[in-house]
Amino acid sequence: MKIDLLTDPAGMVPYCTDWRGRFTGQPIAIAFPKSTAEVHAVVRACRAHRIPIVTQGGNTGLSGGATPDSSASQLLLNLSKLNHIRSIDLENATITVEAGATLEQVQQQAKARGLLFPVDLTARGSATIGGLLATNAGGTAVIRYGNARRQCLGLEVVTASGEIWSGLRGLRKDNTGYDLRDLYIGSEGTLGVITAAVLALEPAPKGLCTAWVEVETISKAIALLQETKQQLGSLLTAFELMSPTALAPVLEYFPEQAGPLRNERFSKNTPLQSGPYFVLIESSSQVSQAHAQEGLEQSLAKGLEQELVLDASTAQSLAQAESFWHLREQITMAAAEDGPQIKLDVALPISRIDDFCKEMSQALEQALPGVRLSNFGHLGDGNLHFNLAAPKEWLTGLPRIERHAKAKGFVEEHEPSLRRLVHDAVMSRGGSISAEHGLGQLRRDEAAHYKSPVELALMRSIKQALDPMGLFNPGKVL
Amino acid sequence: MKIDLLTDPAGMVPYCTDWRGRFTGQPIAIAFPKSTAEVHAVVRACRAHRIPIVTQGGNTGLSGGATPDSSASQLLLNLSKLNHIRSIDLENATITVEAGATLEQVQQQAKARGLLFPVDLTARGSATIGGLLATNAGGTAVIRYGNARRQCLGLEVVTASGEIWSGLRGLRKDNTGYDLRDLYIGSEGTLGVITAAVLALEPAPKGLCTAWVEVETISKAIALLQETKQQLGSLLTAFELMSPTALAPVLEYFPEQAGPLRNERFSKNTPLQSGPYFVLIESSSQVSQAHAQEGLEQSLAKGLEQELVLDASTAQSLAQAESFWHLREQITMAAAEDGPQIKLDVALPISRIDDFCKEMSQALEQALPGVRLSNFGHLGDGNLHFNLAAPKEWLTGLPRIERHAKAKGFVEEHEPSLRRLVHDAVMSRGGSISAEHGLGQLRRDEAAHYKSPVELALMRSIKQALDPMGLFNPGKVL
Repeated sequence: MKIDLLTDPAGMVPYCTDWRGRFTGQPIAIAFPKSTAEVHAVVRACRAHRIPIVTQGGNTGLSGGATPDSSASQLLLNLSKLNHIRSIDLENATITVEAGATLEQVQQQAKARGLLFPVDLTARGSATIGGLLATNAGGTAVIRYGNARRQCLGLEVVTASGEIWSGLRGLRKDNTGYDLRDLYIGSEGTLGVITAAVLALEPAPKGLCTAWVEVETISKAIALLQETKQQLGSLLTAFELMSPTALAPVLEYFPEQAGPLRNERFSKNTPLQSGPYFVLIESSSQVSQAHAQEGLEQSLAKGLEQELVLDASTAQSLAQAESFWHLREQITMAAAEDGPQIKLDVALPISRIDDFCKEMSQALEQALPGVRLSNFGHLGDGNLHFNLAAPKEWLTGLPRIERHAKAKGFVEEHEPSLRRLVHDAVMSRGGSISAEHGLGQLRRDEAAHYKSPVELALMRSIKQALDPMGLFNPGKVL
Repeated sequence: MKIDLLTDPAGMVPYCTDWRGRFTGQPIAIAFPKSTAEVHAVVRACRAHRIPIVTQGGNTGLSGGATPDSSASQLLLNLSKLNHIRSIDLENATITVEAGATLEQVQQQAKARGLLFPVDLTARGSATIGGLLATNAGGTAVIRYGNARRQCLGLEVVTASGEIWSGLRGLRKDNTGYDLRDLYIGSEGTLGVITAAVLALEPAPKGLCTAWVEVETISKAIALLQETKQQLGSLLTAFELMSPTALAPVLEYFPEQAGPLRNERFSKNTPLQSGPYFVLIESSSQVSQAHAQEGLEQSLAKGLEQELVLDASTAQSLAQAESFWHLREQITMAAAEDGPQIKLDVALPISRIDDFCKEMSQALEQALPGVRLSNFGHLGDGNLHFNLAAPKEWLTGLPRIERHAKAKGFVEEHEPSLRRLVHDAVMSRGGSISAEHGLGQLRRDEAAHYKSPVELALMRSIKQALDPMGLFNPGKVL
C-alpha cells in the first residue's frame, strides 16, 4: 500500500490555514488516502507512533476544527481523494458516499435521478460529506430537513482503536443499542475518522416559490415566521433574515449583485443605513407548483393585511429566485471586503430572539459606539449569524490593506469582551453559542466557560472511552 | 424528603410483569418519585448501596426493558408520578414535560393550542414520554416525522454519577459538543434516568385524507409506496401494510371491528385465507384539506391505472378514517386471542423487502408447515412486524385456555430456530433485528450475536464510561 503523502512545507501551505484565515498550523505531513483501507493504515501507523491526527475535508469549516496546531507533530489527514460514490439505491432512496465527496457532487447525483439531497450551504462546491457530518452542518434548509445529522442513516468510521466500524446501514429505523452514529456526527474529528456514509434522499420538489420580503423590525419578521409556518407547514423550506447592516457591504462592494434591492428605495448614497430588515422565504412542494405558491402567497397577503410586511415580491423565474439567493449568499464575501469581523453563530428559542436583539443593539452601542452588528441567518431555526464589524468611520477612506489591518486590530482588541457580552445574553436565554459552526478551536474555551461541570464531565468521559490515547484532533472541542 | 415506596409483594405485582406477559421479575421495592429531586435522591441512595435501578414508565414496552430480574435485589423506579407539564412555549413551538407524562397527555396539550405532537402509537394512553425516549419509539407517523428522537430537543437526566444533567434546551440547532441527548435517547435506561424533556411541536394539519387500499402483492404495495412518495412528498404521513393473516384474527375475534373489510369480498366463512394485502395510507396538509386529498387521490388513480391497486376507498368522514385506523390497531389485540406468538420487529432497506418476504414465506413453510406469518407494519419506513403464530389447525376447536397453552408451547419450542432463520435473512440484507421495539432483555443476546465485535466494544466502552458501576438496568441491551 502506497499512500500519497505531502511533506514539502511549501506544498502543504494551502492546507494549513483555515477558510477564514484565522488559524494557521504546521503538520508533520499531509496524507491523502484514497480508500478506507488507506485511512485505516494511516490511523494504525499514527496510533503505533502516537502521532495525533487532524482530519480535514474541504477545509471550509469556520471554527478552525480542521487546522493542525503549529507544533509540526500532527498528521493532517486530508480526505479529498476518498471521494467515490459507492452506490445509489433508488428504491430505498439512499446514496452511499465516501467522506471526501463534495456536497455538490451528492446534490448532483441525486438531482440526476429525480431526487433531492436537501442539505445546502454556500460552500457546497468544496465542503465534503465527511466535514458536513463531522460538524453536523446546518445551512438554509434546516427548517424543513434538519441539520446534516438528520439525512445520515449510517456511517463507516475508523476508530481510535485502529479498527473499522461498519455501520453503513440504509435503514430509517434501527433501535439496536447506543446511537453511535449520532455520537460520531458532530464530534468534529475528535472521536474517529468518518470514511463513508449512507445518506437519505428526498423526492425532488415539483414546485418552488421564493419571496423577497421587507419588514420593519425583527419582531415583525418573527410574527411573519409564525404566520408562514401556520400557513405552509412542511412546505416551508427556508426563512432567512438579513439585517440592513448585513446587506450594506453587498451594495457597497458588489453593487451588481443587488438583485431585489435594485430599486428606488435603496439609492447608492444611502445604502441601508437604518433601513428595514429583509426576509427570504422559500416554499417548495413535491405535489405541484400551485401548492408551493398558494400557501406562500396567502401568508404574504395575510402579512400585508396585518401590517407585518412592508413590501414583498415573489420570484417570477428561476433566475430571479437565484438572484434573491445570490444576494443572501454574498453577505459573507462582501463583509470580508471590510476585513475580519467578530463572528458569532448563536441559537435562541424563537420566543427570545426579539428581546435578545433589542438588548444587544443597545448594549453593543454602549460597549463600543459605532460598532456594526451584521445580523443575518436562519431565523426559522432560531439561528443568527451575529457578526460584529469595526465602526465604519474607522475604515472609511482607507485602502483595502489598511482597512483590513484596522479591522484585524478591532477583532483582537474587542473580541473577548464583546463576545462575552453577546454570549452571556444568549446563555441567559437558554441559547447556544454555536448553532451550526461547531466548536473547533475557535469556541472550545467559550464552551468550557458556559457548559455545566456535569456536561463537561460527560463529554470528557466519552472522549476518554472512545479515544483514550487522545489520538484524534487534540485541542479541538474539549 | 419522603418518597413513595411500595414494598408489599402483592402491591408490587402489577409492575413486575411486562405488557406482553413474557417477563416477570421481583424487585426489592418500587419507588414512585414525584420530582427530579426525588429521582436524584433515589439514585444517590442506590449508588451508595450499590442497588441496581430499573426505570419504568407506562410499562408498555415490548422487549422487557422495564421489568426487573427475579433476584429481589433491584429497585424498580416507576416514573408515573413524575408527570407534570412544566411549560409550553407557543412561539418556540416547544413543550417541556416530565418523563412520566403520557403520550396522550402531550398530544392533548398540543392539540388544545392548535399544535401537533406527531409521535403516535396504540399505547398512547399509557406509554410515557420517558419510555418513548428511552426506547426511541416509532409508531405510525415515522415516515413523516421520524422516531421519538427527532421530536426531542433537550433532556434532563439523572446520571450514574448521581448528578443532574440539565440539558433542557429548546433549540433547533446546537453544535456545542458531543450529542449526549441522542446517546441517552434509545439507551433503554442503561445509561441514566431521563426525568424531563423539551419536545418540538408541529403546526396542526388543516386537512387529512385516509385511504384503505387493496393490493395483490407486497411488491405492488412497494411500487405504490414509491408512487405515493413521489406524488405526496412531505404530505405522506402514514403508509401501513397489513397481510391477510394479520387481519384474519380481527375478523375472527372482533368481527364488529371489521370496518373497511365489511364487504362482500370477505365472507365470514373465508376470512382472508389467502386474500390480498391491505395498505392504510394517510396524507395530511397544514395548508388545506384539498392539498391532503388531491395528491393522495392522484396517486391512487395512478395506482389503479398501473394495476398496482385492486381497490381503494378514501374515508368520507373522520369516523370512517378512525374505523380504518381502528382495524389496523386491533391487529395485536386480536392476535393475542390466539395466544403468544413469536414477535419480530425487523427493518430492511425498502429495496430488499420484496425478496425478503418471498424467501421467508417459502423458508418458514418449509421449516414448520402451517406456521402463520402475520406480517404488518410501517412499510413506508421499511419496518415490518413479522410475527409467527402456531399453525391454525393446532388451535382450532380448543377452548381459550388450551389454545393459549398450545401457542405458548409453540413459541417455546420454535422461537430459537425460526427467529434465527428470519434474522439471518434480515441481516444478510443489511437490515435490523429491532426497528422500533428496542433490545431490552428479549433481543439482547440476538443483538450480541449479530453485531460486529467492533460495534459491541464501542457500546461497552460507552456503558463503562457513563455507568461504570453498572447501576442502571443491568442485563438489558448489553
